Amino acid sequence: MNKKNNSANKTSGGSVLLYGRHPVLAAVNNPKRKIGKIFCTKENVEELKKSLQQTQRNIPLEIIERKELDRMLPRDAVHQGFALQCKELENCSLEEICHLAEAEKNCHILLLDQVTDPQNIGAIIRSCVAFDTLALILQDKNSPTESGSMAKASAGMIEQLPICRVTNLSRAIEKLKDSGFWIIGMDGYATTYIDSVNKTGKIAIIMGSEGKGMRRLVEENCDTTVKLPIAPSVESLNVSTAAAIALYEINKK
Amino acid sequence: MNKKNNSANKTSGGSVLLYGRHPVLAAVNNPKRKIGKIFCTKENVEELKKSLQQTQRNIPLEIIERKELDRMLPRDAVHQGFALQCKELENCSLEEICHLAEAEKNCHILLLDQVTDPQNIGAIIRSCVAFDTLALILQDKNSPTESGSMAKASAGMIEQLPICRVTNLSRAIEKLKDSGFWIIGMDGYATTYIDSVNKTGKIAIIMGSEGKGMRRLVEENCDTTVKLPIAPSVESLNVSTAAAIALYEINKK
Repeated sequence: MNKKNNSANKTSGGSVLLYGRHPVLAAVNNPKRKIGKIFCTKENVEELKKSLQQTQRNIPLEIIERKELDRMLPRDAVHQGFALQCKELENCSLEEICHLAEAEKNCHILLLDQVTDPQNIGAIIRSCVAFDTLALILQDKNSPTESGSMAKASAGMIEQLPICRVTNLSRAIEKLKDSGFWIIGMDGYATTYIDSVNKTGKIAIIMGSEGKGMRRLVEENCDTTVKLPIAPSVESLNVSTAAAIALYEINKK
Repeated sequence: MNKKNNSANKTSGGSVLLYGRHPVLAAVNNPKRKIGKIFCTKENVEELKKSLQQTQRNIPLEIIERKELDRMLPRDAVHQGFALQCKELENCSLEEICHLAEAEKNCHILLLDQVTDPQNIGAIIRSCVAFDTLALILQDKNSPTESGSMAKASAGMIEQLPICRVTNLSRAIEKLKDSGFWIIGMDGYATTYIDSVNKTGKIAIIMGSEGKGMRRLVEENCDTTVKLPIAPSVESLNVSTAAAIALYEINKK
Protein backbone atom coordinates (compact mmCIF):
# COMPACT_ATOMS: atom_id res chain seq x y z
CA MET A 1 0.00 0.00 0.00
CA ASN A 2 1.48 3.25 -1.14
CA LYS A 3 0.81 5.53 1.78
CA LYS A 4 2.03 8.59 0.00
CA ASN A 5 -0.46 8.15 -2.82
CA ASN A 6 -3.42 8.22 -0.53
CA SER A 7 -2.27 10.83 1.91
CA ALA A 8 -4.23 14.05 1.78
CA ASN A 9 -3.18 16.78 -0.55
CA LYS A 10 -2.08 19.11 2.25
CA THR A 11 -1.51 22.36 0.44
CA SER A 12 -2.19 23.15 -3.13
CA GLY A 13 -0.89 26.62 -2.42
CA GLY A 14 -3.32 27.99 -4.97
CA SER A 15 -4.76 31.46 -4.71
CA VAL A 16 -8.46 32.03 -4.50
CA LEU A 17 -10.67 35.09 -4.68
CA LEU A 18 -13.51 34.93 -2.18
CA TYR A 19 -16.54 37.20 -2.41
CA GLY A 20 -19.70 38.01 -0.51
CA ARG A 21 -20.24 39.33 2.99
CA HIS A 22 -20.33 36.03 4.89
CA PRO A 23 -17.39 34.33 3.13
CA VAL A 24 -15.13 37.39 3.45
CA LEU A 25 -15.93 38.09 7.11
CA ALA A 26 -15.58 34.38 7.96
CA ALA A 27 -12.17 34.28 6.26
CA VAL A 28 -11.02 37.35 8.17
CA ASN A 29 -12.08 35.63 11.39
CA ASN A 30 -10.24 32.41 10.56
CA PRO A 31 -6.66 32.66 11.85
CA LYS A 32 -5.67 29.74 9.62
CA ARG A 33 -6.64 31.62 6.45
CA LYS A 34 -3.66 33.25 4.75
CA ILE A 35 -5.01 36.49 3.37
CA GLY A 36 -3.33 38.75 0.83
CA LYS A 37 -5.70 41.66 0.51
CA ILE A 38 -9.29 42.69 1.10
CA PHE A 39 -11.30 44.68 -1.43
CA CYS A 40 -14.52 46.40 -0.51
CA THR A 41 -16.84 49.18 -1.52
CA LYS A 42 -16.83 52.23 0.72
CA GLU A 43 -20.08 51.39 2.54
CA ASN A 44 -18.47 48.19 3.88
CA VAL A 45 -15.25 49.73 5.19
CA GLU A 46 -16.45 50.29 8.74
CA GLU A 47 -17.72 46.73 9.17
CA LEU A 48 -14.46 45.29 7.87
CA LYS A 49 -12.28 47.56 9.98
CA LYS A 50 -14.23 46.48 13.05
CA SER A 51 -13.72 42.82 12.18
CA LEU A 52 -10.02 43.36 11.57
CA GLN A 53 -9.67 45.19 14.86
CA GLN A 54 -11.29 42.31 16.74
CA THR A 55 -9.02 39.76 15.10
CA GLN A 56 -5.96 42.00 15.48
CA ARG A 57 -4.90 41.05 11.97
CA ASN A 58 -3.04 43.48 9.83
CA ILE A 59 -4.41 42.94 6.32
CA PRO A 60 -4.28 45.49 3.49
CA LEU A 61 -7.72 46.87 2.67
CA GLU A 62 -8.46 48.52 -0.64
CA ILE A 63 -11.62 50.51 -1.22
CA ILE A 64 -12.85 50.06 -4.76
CA GLU A 65 -15.88 50.81 -6.88
CA ARG A 66 -18.68 48.24 -7.20
CA LYS A 67 -18.05 48.16 -10.96
CA GLU A 68 -14.43 47.18 -10.43
CA LEU A 69 -15.51 44.31 -8.20
CA ASP A 70 -17.95 43.23 -10.90
CA ARG A 71 -15.03 43.10 -13.33
CA MET A 72 -12.72 41.20 -10.95
CA LEU A 73 -15.25 38.49 -10.15
CA PRO A 74 -17.16 35.89 -12.18
CA ARG A 75 -20.25 37.22 -13.93
CA ASP A 76 -23.32 37.05 -11.69
CA ALA A 77 -21.19 36.73 -8.53
CA VAL A 78 -23.25 38.23 -5.71
CA HIS A 79 -20.34 39.98 -4.00
CA GLN A 80 -22.29 42.49 -1.88
CA GLY A 81 -19.27 44.80 -2.08
CA PHE A 82 -16.82 42.34 -0.47
CA ALA A 83 -13.89 40.41 -1.99
CA LEU A 84 -10.72 38.89 -0.57
CA GLN A 85 -7.56 37.55 -2.13
CA CYS A 86 -6.16 34.60 -0.19
CA LYS A 87 -4.53 31.18 -0.27
CA GLU A 88 -6.62 28.03 -0.36
CA LEU A 89 -7.17 26.51 3.06
CA GLU A 90 -4.92 23.64 4.01
CA ASN A 91 -6.60 20.28 3.74
CA CYS A 92 -6.35 17.96 6.69
CA SER A 93 -5.15 14.38 6.49
CA LEU A 94 -7.20 11.25 7.02
CA GLU A 95 -4.98 10.54 10.01
CA GLU A 96 -5.96 13.87 11.55
CA ILE A 97 -9.65 13.08 11.06
CA CYS A 98 -9.26 9.66 12.69
CA HIS A 99 -7.41 11.38 15.51
CA LEU A 100 -10.22 13.91 15.94
CA ALA A 101 -12.71 11.04 16.04
CA GLU A 102 -10.77 9.20 18.73
CA ALA A 103 -11.87 11.74 21.31
CA GLU A 104 -15.56 11.35 20.38
CA LYS A 105 -17.96 8.64 21.46
CA ASN A 106 -20.58 9.63 18.90
CA CYS A 107 -19.60 11.50 15.77
CA HIS A 108 -20.16 11.46 12.03
CA ILE A 109 -18.27 12.41 8.92
CA LEU A 110 -19.38 12.75 5.29
CA LEU A 111 -17.68 11.35 2.18
CA LEU A 112 -18.54 12.53 -1.33
CA ASP A 113 -17.91 10.21 -4.25
CA GLN A 114 -17.64 12.11 -7.54
CA VAL A 115 -19.68 15.16 -6.57
CA THR A 116 -18.31 17.78 -8.92
CA ASP A 117 -20.43 20.91 -8.68
CA PRO A 118 -18.72 23.58 -6.52
CA GLN A 119 -22.02 25.08 -5.40
CA ASN A 120 -23.34 21.70 -4.29
CA ILE A 121 -20.13 21.10 -2.37
CA GLY A 122 -20.39 24.56 -0.79
CA ALA A 123 -24.01 23.94 0.23
CA ILE A 124 -22.98 20.56 1.67
CA ILE A 125 -20.19 22.22 3.68
CA ARG A 126 -22.77 24.59 5.20
CA SER A 127 -24.99 21.64 6.19
CA CYS A 128 -22.00 19.75 7.60
CA VAL A 129 -21.24 22.59 10.00
CA ALA A 130 -24.93 23.05 10.83
CA PHE A 131 -25.25 19.40 11.81
CA ASP A 132 -21.98 18.99 13.71
CA THR A 133 -20.21 16.89 11.11
CA LEU A 134 -16.63 16.23 12.18
CA ALA A 135 -15.09 16.44 8.69
CA LEU A 136 -15.75 16.16 4.97
CA ILE A 137 -13.79 13.78 2.77
CA LEU A 138 -13.61 14.35 -0.98
CA GLN A 139 -12.12 12.25 -3.70
CA ASP A 140 -9.31 14.47 -4.94
CA LYS A 141 -9.33 13.63 -8.62
CA ASN A 142 -12.92 14.49 -9.41
CA SER A 143 -13.62 17.24 -6.92
CA PRO A 144 -13.26 20.91 -7.73
CA THR A 145 -10.66 22.86 -5.78
CA GLU A 146 -11.71 25.60 -3.41
CA SER A 147 -13.32 28.54 -5.17
CA GLY A 148 -15.24 31.74 -4.57
CA SER A 149 -18.53 30.14 -5.56
CA MET A 150 -17.92 27.16 -3.23
CA ALA A 151 -17.15 29.47 -0.30
CA LYS A 152 -20.18 31.60 -1.15
CA ALA A 153 -22.52 28.57 -1.25
CA SER A 154 -21.09 27.52 2.12
CA ALA A 155 -21.97 30.98 3.52
CA GLY A 156 -18.42 31.15 4.87
CA MET A 157 -18.72 27.81 6.71
CA ILE A 158 -15.79 26.50 4.65
CA GLU A 159 -13.62 28.26 7.26
CA GLN A 160 -14.94 25.99 10.00
CA LEU A 161 -14.95 22.49 8.52
CA PRO A 162 -11.94 20.13 8.33
CA ILE A 163 -11.79 18.96 4.71
CA CYS A 164 -9.67 16.04 3.54
CA ARG A 165 -8.94 15.10 -0.07
CA VAL A 166 -7.96 11.50 -0.78
CA THR A 167 -6.90 9.88 -4.02
CA ASN A 168 -8.49 6.53 -3.25
CA LEU A 169 -11.89 6.61 -1.57
CA SER A 170 -12.13 2.84 -1.06
CA ARG A 171 -8.82 2.84 0.78
CA ALA A 172 -9.99 5.77 2.92
CA ILE A 173 -13.10 3.76 3.80
CA GLU A 174 -10.91 0.86 4.93
CA LYS A 175 -8.96 3.20 7.16
CA LEU A 176 -12.15 4.64 8.64
CA LYS A 177 -13.41 1.12 9.37
CA ASP A 178 -10.14 0.40 11.17
CA SER A 179 -10.78 3.51 13.26
CA GLY A 180 -14.18 2.23 14.32
CA PHE A 181 -16.42 3.98 11.81
CA TRP A 182 -19.62 2.33 10.59
CA ILE A 183 -19.93 3.06 6.85
CA ILE A 184 -23.38 4.01 5.54
CA GLY A 185 -23.90 4.53 1.82
CA MET A 186 -26.82 6.60 0.54
CA ASP A 187 -28.42 4.69 -2.32
CA GLY A 188 -31.86 5.16 -3.87
CA TYR A 189 -32.12 1.40 -4.38
CA ALA A 190 -31.47 0.50 -0.73
CA THR A 191 -34.22 -1.40 1.08
CA THR A 192 -34.11 0.44 4.41
CA TYR A 193 -34.58 4.07 5.32
CA ILE A 194 -31.99 6.27 6.95
CA ASP A 195 -34.00 6.82 10.12
CA SER A 196 -33.77 3.11 10.93
CA VAL A 197 -29.98 3.13 11.43
CA ASN A 198 -28.39 3.03 14.85
CA LYS A 199 -27.11 6.57 15.39
CA THR A 200 -24.68 5.84 18.19
CA GLY A 201 -20.96 5.49 17.67
CA LYS A 202 -18.82 6.74 14.81
CA ILE A 203 -20.67 6.98 11.50
CA ALA A 204 -19.39 7.78 8.01
CA ILE A 205 -22.02 8.64 5.40
CA ILE A 206 -21.18 8.34 1.72
CA MET A 207 -23.06 10.21 -1.01
CA GLY A 208 -22.57 9.56 -4.70
CA SER A 209 -23.04 12.00 -7.53
CA GLU A 210 -26.56 13.07 -8.41
CA GLY A 211 -26.68 11.32 -11.73
CA LYS A 212 -24.73 8.13 -11.19
CA GLY A 213 -24.75 7.53 -7.44
CA MET A 214 -21.84 5.83 -5.73
CA ARG A 215 -19.40 3.83 -7.80
CA ARG A 216 -19.81 0.07 -7.41
CA LEU A 217 -16.49 -0.43 -5.67
CA VAL A 218 -17.30 2.27 -3.14
CA GLU A 219 -20.77 0.85 -2.53
CA GLU A 220 -19.36 -2.64 -1.97
CA ASN A 221 -17.22 -1.20 0.82
CA CYS A 222 -20.23 0.10 2.75
CA ASP A 223 -21.39 -1.71 5.89
CA THR A 224 -24.95 -0.88 4.91
CA THR A 225 -26.87 1.23 2.40
CA VAL A 226 -29.95 3.31 3.16
CA LYS A 227 -32.30 5.59 1.26
CA LEU A 228 -34.49 8.62 1.89
CA PRO A 229 -38.27 8.22 1.79
CA ILE A 230 -39.08 10.08 -1.43
CA ALA A 231 -42.10 9.80 -3.72
CA PRO A 232 -41.70 7.30 -6.59
CA SER A 233 -42.34 10.04 -9.18
CA VAL A 234 -39.15 11.82 -8.09
CA GLU A 235 -36.06 10.12 -9.45
CA SER A 236 -33.71 11.69 -6.90
CA LEU A 237 -33.10 14.75 -4.78
CA ASN A 238 -30.39 17.26 -5.44
CA VAL A 239 -27.23 15.86 -3.82
CA SER A 240 -26.89 18.81 -1.43
CA THR A 241 -30.52 18.43 -0.35
CA ALA A 242 -30.10 14.69 0.19
CA ALA A 243 -26.88 15.27 2.15
CA ALA A 244 -28.56 17.86 4.37
CA ILE A 245 -31.41 15.50 5.24
CA ALA A 246 -29.01 12.61 5.89
CA LEU A 247 -26.83 14.75 8.18
CA TYR A 248 -29.90 16.14 9.98
CA GLU A 249 -31.20 12.62 10.58
CA ILE A 250 -27.87 11.18 11.73
CA ASN A 251 -27.28 14.13 14.06
CA LYS A 252 -30.71 13.91 15.71
CA LYS A 253 -30.59 13.16 19.39
CA MET B 1 -62.97 41.39 2.53
CA ASN B 2 -62.18 41.83 -1.11
CA LYS B 3 -62.29 38.29 -2.39
CA LYS B 4 -61.07 39.26 -5.80
CA ASN B 5 -57.90 40.81 -4.41
CA ASN B 6 -56.82 37.63 -2.72
CA SER B 7 -57.90 35.14 -5.32
CA ALA B 8 -55.06 33.38 -7.04
CA ASN B 9 -53.56 34.81 -10.17
CA LYS B 10 -54.91 32.05 -12.41
CA THR B 11 -53.11 32.69 -15.67
CA SER B 12 -50.46 35.18 -16.35
CA GLY B 13 -50.45 33.91 -19.92
CA GLY B 14 -46.75 34.64 -20.09
CA SER B 15 -44.41 32.65 -22.26
CA VAL B 16 -41.48 30.81 -20.83
CA LEU B 17 -38.49 29.04 -22.31
CA LEU B 18 -37.68 25.83 -20.46
CA TYR B 19 -34.36 24.04 -20.85
CA GLY B 20 -32.60 20.90 -19.72
CA ARG B 21 -33.48 17.25 -20.20
CA HIS B 22 -35.70 16.74 -17.15
CA PRO B 23 -37.69 19.99 -17.41
CA VAL B 24 -38.35 19.55 -21.14
CA LEU B 25 -39.36 15.88 -20.95
CA ALA B 26 -41.53 16.57 -17.89
CA ALA B 27 -43.29 19.41 -19.73
CA VAL B 28 -43.94 17.17 -22.75
CA ASN B 29 -45.47 14.61 -20.40
CA ASN B 30 -47.71 17.16 -18.69
CA PRO B 31 -51.00 17.39 -20.61
CA LYS B 32 -51.77 20.70 -18.87
CA ARG B 33 -48.65 22.34 -20.28
CA LYS B 34 -49.39 24.43 -23.40
CA ILE B 35 -46.36 23.95 -25.60
CA GLY B 36 -45.44 25.99 -28.64
CA LYS B 37 -42.31 24.33 -29.92
CA ILE B 38 -39.47 22.05 -28.89
CA PHE B 39 -35.85 22.72 -29.79
CA CYS B 40 -33.20 20.06 -29.53
CA THR B 41 -29.80 19.05 -30.78
CA LYS B 42 -29.75 16.10 -33.16
CA GLU B 43 -28.57 13.55 -30.59
CA ASN B 44 -31.74 14.15 -28.55
CA VAL B 45 -34.24 13.79 -31.39
CA GLU B 46 -34.94 10.09 -30.87
CA GLU B 47 -35.62 10.44 -27.15
CA LEU B 48 -37.99 13.35 -27.73
CA LYS B 49 -39.83 11.63 -30.57
CA LYS B 50 -40.36 8.60 -28.34
CA SER B 51 -41.75 10.81 -25.57
CA LEU B 52 -44.04 12.61 -28.00
CA GLN B 53 -45.29 9.32 -29.40
CA GLN B 54 -46.16 8.07 -25.93
CA THR B 55 -48.05 11.24 -25.10
CA GLN B 56 -49.65 11.37 -28.55
CA ARG B 57 -49.03 15.09 -28.66
CA ASN B 58 -48.39 16.83 -31.90
CA ILE B 59 -45.76 19.44 -31.07
CA PRO B 60 -43.38 21.03 -33.59
CA LEU B 61 -39.81 19.88 -33.09
CA GLU B 62 -36.87 21.85 -34.45
CA ILE B 63 -33.40 20.42 -34.58
CA ILE B 64 -30.82 23.10 -33.92
CA GLU B 65 -27.13 23.45 -33.21
CA ARG B 66 -25.86 23.51 -29.63
CA LYS B 67 -24.43 26.97 -30.26
CA GLU B 68 -27.84 28.30 -31.25
CA LEU B 69 -29.32 26.95 -28.02
CA ASP B 70 -26.51 28.66 -26.13
CA ARG B 71 -27.53 31.92 -27.75
CA MET B 72 -31.28 31.46 -27.09
CA LEU B 73 -30.85 30.72 -23.39
CA PRO B 74 -29.38 32.57 -20.41
CA ARG B 75 -25.61 32.38 -20.13
CA ASP B 76 -24.49 29.32 -18.18
CA ALA B 77 -27.86 27.58 -18.68
CA VAL B 78 -27.14 23.84 -18.60
CA HIS B 79 -29.54 22.94 -21.43
CA GLN B 80 -28.15 19.50 -22.33
CA GLY B 81 -29.42 20.06 -25.87
CA PHE B 82 -33.10 20.53 -24.88
CA ALA B 83 -35.30 23.65 -24.90
CA LEU B 84 -39.03 24.21 -25.09
CA GLN B 85 -41.17 27.27 -25.74
CA CYS B 86 -44.41 27.17 -23.76
CA LYS B 87 -46.97 29.06 -21.70
CA GLU B 88 -46.59 29.39 -17.96
CA LEU B 89 -48.55 26.78 -16.03
CA GLU B 90 -51.89 27.86 -14.64
CA ASN B 91 -51.80 28.57 -10.95
CA CYS B 92 -54.44 26.95 -8.80
CA SER B 93 -56.67 28.83 -6.39
CA LEU B 94 -56.64 28.62 -2.62
CA GLU B 95 -60.16 27.19 -2.86
CA GLU B 96 -58.87 24.36 -5.04
CA ILE B 97 -56.12 23.57 -2.51
CA CYS B 98 -58.61 23.51 0.35
CA HIS B 99 -60.80 21.26 -1.76
CA LEU B 100 -57.86 18.90 -2.43
CA ALA B 101 -57.16 18.81 1.32
CA GLU B 102 -60.77 17.92 2.15
CA ALA B 103 -60.22 14.41 0.82
CA GLU B 104 -57.12 13.87 2.96
CA LYS B 105 -56.92 12.94 6.61
CA ASN B 106 -53.20 13.74 6.85
CA CYS B 107 -51.60 16.17 4.44
CA HIS B 108 -49.27 19.13 4.38
CA ILE B 109 -48.72 22.21 2.30
CA LEU B 110 -45.89 24.74 2.20
CA LEU B 111 -46.13 28.54 2.19
CA LEU B 112 -43.22 30.79 1.28
CA ASP B 113 -43.10 34.32 2.62
CA GLN B 114 -40.84 36.58 0.55
CA VAL B 115 -38.59 33.90 -0.90
CA THR B 116 -37.41 35.55 -4.08
CA ASP B 117 -34.66 33.43 -5.64
CA PRO B 118 -36.02 31.36 -8.58
CA GLN B 119 -33.48 28.58 -8.03
CA ASN B 120 -34.39 28.27 -4.37
CA ILE B 121 -38.06 28.12 -5.31
CA GLY B 122 -37.30 25.48 -7.96
CA ALA B 123 -35.33 23.38 -5.47
CA ILE B 124 -38.19 23.72 -2.97
CA ILE B 125 -40.69 22.56 -5.62
CA ARG B 126 -38.56 19.43 -6.14
CA SER B 127 -38.55 18.72 -2.40
CA CYS B 128 -42.31 19.36 -2.17
CA VAL B 129 -42.99 16.63 -4.75
CA ALA B 130 -40.42 14.30 -3.15
CA PHE B 131 -42.13 14.60 0.23
CA ASP B 132 -45.76 14.40 -0.93
CA THR B 133 -46.60 18.05 -0.31
CA LEU B 134 -50.12 18.79 -1.48
CA ALA B 135 -49.43 22.29 -2.79
CA LEU B 136 -47.12 25.29 -2.61
CA ILE B 137 -48.43 28.76 -1.80
CA LEU B 138 -46.41 31.84 -2.78
CA GLN B 139 -46.98 35.46 -2.04
CA ASP B 140 -47.60 36.85 -5.49
CA LYS B 141 -46.03 40.28 -5.14
CA ASN B 142 -42.53 39.24 -4.09
CA SER B 143 -42.19 35.88 -5.84
CA PRO B 144 -40.60 35.47 -9.24
CA THR B 145 -42.79 34.17 -12.03
CA GLU B 146 -42.12 30.80 -13.58
CA SER B 147 -38.82 30.66 -15.44
CA GLY B 148 -36.41 28.28 -17.10
CA SER B 149 -34.03 28.36 -14.14
CA MET B 150 -36.87 27.66 -11.70
CA ALA B 151 -38.06 24.67 -13.76
CA LYS B 152 -34.46 23.45 -14.08
CA ALA B 153 -33.85 23.65 -10.32
CA SER B 154 -37.09 21.71 -9.81
CA ALA B 155 -35.76 18.98 -12.17
CA GLY B 156 -39.09 19.19 -14.01
CA MET B 157 -41.13 18.66 -10.81
CA ILE B 158 -42.82 22.02 -11.43
CA GLU B 159 -45.10 20.06 -13.77
CA GLN B 160 -46.42 17.98 -10.88
CA LEU B 161 -47.05 20.43 -8.04
CA PRO B 162 -50.16 22.59 -7.60
CA ILE B 163 -48.89 26.14 -7.05
CA CYS B 164 -51.05 28.97 -5.78
CA ARG B 165 -50.14 32.66 -5.71
CA VAL B 166 -51.94 34.87 -3.24
CA THR B 167 -51.74 38.62 -2.73
CA ASN B 168 -52.24 38.46 1.02
CA LEU B 169 -50.49 35.64 2.86
CA SER B 170 -52.08 36.42 6.24
CA ARG B 171 -55.53 36.17 4.73
CA ALA B 172 -54.58 32.89 3.06
CA ILE B 173 -53.47 31.57 6.46
CA GLU B 174 -56.86 32.48 7.92
CA LYS B 175 -58.58 30.55 5.15
CA LEU B 176 -56.33 27.54 5.72
CA LYS B 177 -57.15 27.62 9.43
CA ASP B 178 -60.85 27.62 8.55
CA SER B 179 -60.18 24.52 6.44
CA GLY B 180 -58.67 22.69 9.38
CA PHE B 181 -54.97 23.37 8.81
CA TRP B 182 -52.57 23.69 11.73
CA ILE B 183 -50.12 26.50 10.89
CA ILE B 184 -46.45 25.92 11.72
CA GLY B 185 -43.93 28.71 11.16
CA MET B 186 -40.23 27.93 10.77
CA ASP B 187 -38.30 30.38 12.93
CA GLY B 188 -34.72 30.16 14.14
CA TYR B 189 -35.75 31.80 17.43
CA ALA B 190 -38.47 29.26 18.25
CA THR B 191 -38.06 27.29 21.45
CA THR B 192 -39.13 23.85 20.16
CA TYR B 193 -37.78 21.65 17.40
CA ILE B 194 -39.73 20.54 14.36
CA ASP B 195 -39.62 16.85 15.24
CA SER B 196 -41.68 17.52 18.37
CA VAL B 197 -44.81 18.59 16.45
CA ASN B 198 -47.80 16.34 16.07
CA LYS B 199 -47.65 15.18 12.46
CA THR B 200 -51.23 14.01 12.11
CA GLY B 201 -53.93 16.04 10.44
CA LYS B 202 -53.58 18.92 8.01
CA ILE B 203 -50.39 20.91 8.40
CA ALA B 204 -49.26 24.12 6.72
CA ILE B 205 -45.57 25.00 7.06
CA ILE B 206 -44.43 28.58 6.52
CA MET B 207 -40.86 29.51 5.61
CA GLY B 208 -39.60 33.07 5.53
CA SER B 209 -36.80 34.45 3.41
CA GLU B 210 -33.25 33.45 4.23
CA GLY B 211 -32.15 36.83 5.43
CA LYS B 212 -35.19 38.23 7.18
CA GLY B 213 -37.34 35.22 8.09
CA MET B 214 -41.09 35.51 8.23
CA ARG B 215 -42.69 38.92 8.46
CA ARG B 216 -44.06 39.72 11.91
CA LEU B 217 -47.69 39.73 10.82
CA VAL B 218 -47.30 36.34 9.18
CA GLU B 219 -45.55 34.92 12.25
CA GLU B 220 -48.29 36.20 14.54
CA ASN B 221 -50.78 34.18 12.51
CA CYS B 222 -48.97 30.89 13.15
CA ASP B 223 -50.41 28.37 15.60
CA THR B 224 -46.86 27.51 16.62
CA THR B 225 -43.28 28.15 15.56
CA VAL B 226 -40.51 25.58 15.46
CA LYS B 227 -36.83 25.49 14.53
CA LEU B 228 -34.30 23.05 13.14
CA PRO B 229 -31.52 21.79 15.42
CA ILE B 230 -28.51 23.57 13.92
CA ALA B 231 -25.14 24.41 15.47
CA PRO B 232 -24.97 27.87 17.08
CA SER B 233 -22.07 28.88 14.83
CA VAL B 234 -24.33 28.61 11.78
CA GLU B 235 -26.66 31.58 11.49
CA SER B 236 -29.12 29.81 9.23
CA LEU B 237 -29.49 27.19 6.53
CA ASN B 238 -30.21 27.96 2.91
CA VAL B 239 -34.01 28.32 2.65
CA SER B 240 -34.33 25.41 0.21
CA THR B 241 -32.26 23.18 2.51
CA ALA B 242 -34.36 24.17 5.53
CA ALA B 243 -37.57 23.59 3.58
CA ALA B 244 -36.41 20.14 2.46
CA ILE B 245 -35.64 19.07 6.03
CA ALA B 246 -38.93 20.46 7.32
CA LEU B 247 -40.91 18.64 4.62
CA TYR B 248 -38.95 15.43 5.20
CA GLU B 249 -39.68 15.59 8.93
CA ILE B 250 -43.37 16.43 8.56
CA ASN B 251 -43.85 13.67 5.98
CA LYS B 252 -42.17 10.97 8.12
CA LYS B 253 -44.46 8.16 9.08
